[in-house]
Amino acid sequence: MGVVLNIENAKPDVASIKDLIDLTAADMGRVNELILSKAGSDVEMIPQIANHLISSGGKRLRPMLTLAAAQMFGYRGDGHVKLATSVEFMHTATLLHDDVVDESGMRRGKKTARMIWGNQASVLVGDYLLGQAFRMMVEVGSLEALDILSSAASIIAEGEVMQLAAAKNLETTEDEHFAVIKAKTAALFSAAAEVGPVVAGASRTDRAALRSYGMNLGLAFQLIDDALDYGGSSTDLGKNVGDDFREGKVTLPVILAYRRGTAAERAFWKRAIEEGRADDTGLEKATGLLARHGAVADTISRARHFGEIARDALAPLDATPQKSALIDVIDFCISRVS
Amino acid sequence: MGVVLNIENAKPDVASIKDLIDLTAADMGRVNELILSKAGSDVEMIPQIANHLISSGGKRLRPMLTLAAAQMFGYRGDGHVKLATSVEFMHTATLLHDDVVDESGMRRGKKTARMIWGNQASVLVGDYLLGQAFRMMVEVGSLEALDILSSAASIIAEGEVMQLAAAKNLETTEDEHFAVIKAKTAALFSAAAEVGPVVAGASRTDRAALRSYGMNLGLAFQLIDDALDYGGSSTDLGKNVGDDFREGKVTLPVILAYRRGTAAERAFWKRAIEEGRADDTGLEKATGLLARHGAVADTISRARHFGEIARDALAPLDATPQKSALIDVIDFCISRVS
Repeated sequence: MGVVLNIENAKPDVASIKDLIDLTAADMGRVNELILSKAGSDVEMIPQIANHLISSGGKRLRPMLTLAAAQMFGYRGDGHVKLATSVEFMHTATLLHDDVVDESGMRRGKKTARMIWGNQASVLVGDYLLGQAFRMMVEVGSLEALDILSSAASIIAEGEVMQLAAAKNLETTEDEHFAVIKAKTAALFSAAAEVGPVVAGASRTDRAALRSYGMNLGLAFQLIDDALDYGGSSTDLGKNVGDDFREGKVTLPVILAYRRGTAAERAFWKRAIEEGRADDTGLEKATGLLARHGAVADTISRARHFGEIARDALAPLDATPQKSALIDVIDFCISRVS
Repeated sequence: MGVVLNIENAKPDVASIKDLIDLTAADMGRVNELILSKAGSDVEMIPQIANHLISSGGKRLRPMLTLAAAQMFGYRGDGHVKLATSVEFMHTATLLHDDVVDESGMRRGKKTARMIWGNQASVLVGDYLLGQAFRMMVEVGSLEALDILSSAASIIAEGEVMQLAAAKNLETTEDEHFAVIKAKTAALFSAAAEVGPVVAGASRTDRAALRSYGMNLGLAFQLIDDALDYGGSSTDLGKNVGDDFREGKVTLPVILAYRRGTAAERAFWKRAIEEGRADDTGLEKATGLLARHGAVADTISRARHFGEIARDALAPLDATPQKSALIDVIDFCISRVS
């Protein structure tokens, strides 16, 4: 298994989100304008920090999901642009707070905001962006969309606390781990996809389809990300391979290798992850253990499982260019490691 | 000028919010139940941290404002209880993040959450409470109330960033300082008061009256708080006199004394506030300089000015027990230092 490419920074060879990009290009132009205007403030540090993250080369997958999902049901207004921007702001706010919580130094190949402007500003500008996200949602005027996105905000934070509480705990079960990534990552993908049909006035069935698609896509996305951390290269990822290992993060590859390991291997993982005595020699050993137990390969196979559910969630819907583009996103996510 | 009492912990001799407490007692019972239920989560750290702050003896002035303001216009539903709880959650989330930003060790005479559970958990539980606040607002279903409270959330965060950017800058003008406290403190008082008439379907004039009342009450409240920091006693305040001084906070008493001071005095303030070389001898000297320039007395007189505006904002409204209770709140705030 070799890693091909990273969704955030480059074009994949295997599968492509080109159709999604093309279909949402015009709307994304408006999202980008709205991002710049709503991240503005007379308080200089706010646009500085917001732009640092916003301009740092993310592919803006989440807002594209919202736009395509709204188009899919013939939406004609401009509410989807505001909701897509809200989704991106929620994501940006989460990244700002995450980097503070994880004490991260780098993100997408750049210094994190907290390294340049400090933890304090990162916390507060995150709060500001979250407030601005809610203001935009309110402007759209859909109480259902507000319900979905505000619930996601709670769930994401709850997932982050769950992760913090379980930090460095190698006894975390696979189910407990899925609960964490479902909350901290998949809930926003799910909400992003569901508010599309909601603003377009689609049926409950269609809403449920997009919600399920987003949730399962988000799970696959996170699992592939965790697999990539033990198999990508620094330039592809915008972070270094083994970052999760060095930070002592308990991701699925580690959970599987730990559960399948011998007593001696478990002692190694305890030293490395729980006691933080990991180094680059440790990384080499860890990679060897992961390979021995097929832990990365099985993480990818779990991701494929969720990808299949996402695909079937969309199956009953009419064939549209948007539907086909959303299915491409699943393949694209998985193909990052194929 | 001697400090009599603190709003958070004891009964005042001079003016009382007893009528406000009595009028809102039944509704506050429901607010307290809702606080417990909505601060709940299977993730143990969330209720632990939330309860630490929520049970720490605050008088819950802000939610009482919402409840009384809704009652005043004959509101009969239960939306005001949810909005009042949302307001308290927004306030609690702000305190959690503030303590991280200010690196505070104590609040209301207890260790801050960050000292017990760490900065990371404080940031994330703050985010969770903010998410829960928005969910409750959405349940009420008033887009106008959502607009007011989500705007307040942005403005509060913007004010906090403004304060961070101006931190330790003694050249801050009085106007710039008012802009900060208007955003970081008064905006929530204003929103708390305004959503009362909004949920009760009161007229635009009535809404504007309560909004103005809340804003000016909030300004008076913050200025009195800043004055108390140079004149209260530790037990009254739940923090030590001189905390703001030791933390190098540029509050109005300091701004006035600095602007009115000699070159030598300014050099003292620079050393103490900007360079952080303040100690208890410094505090004694600072208190002397504040007295020489009437800086605390004039801070209180600025507070009275805003208190008068708050009073006049309510003047045109019909006489009701709620109106009279809200006017008592102004007197109560000011009387803390009389």
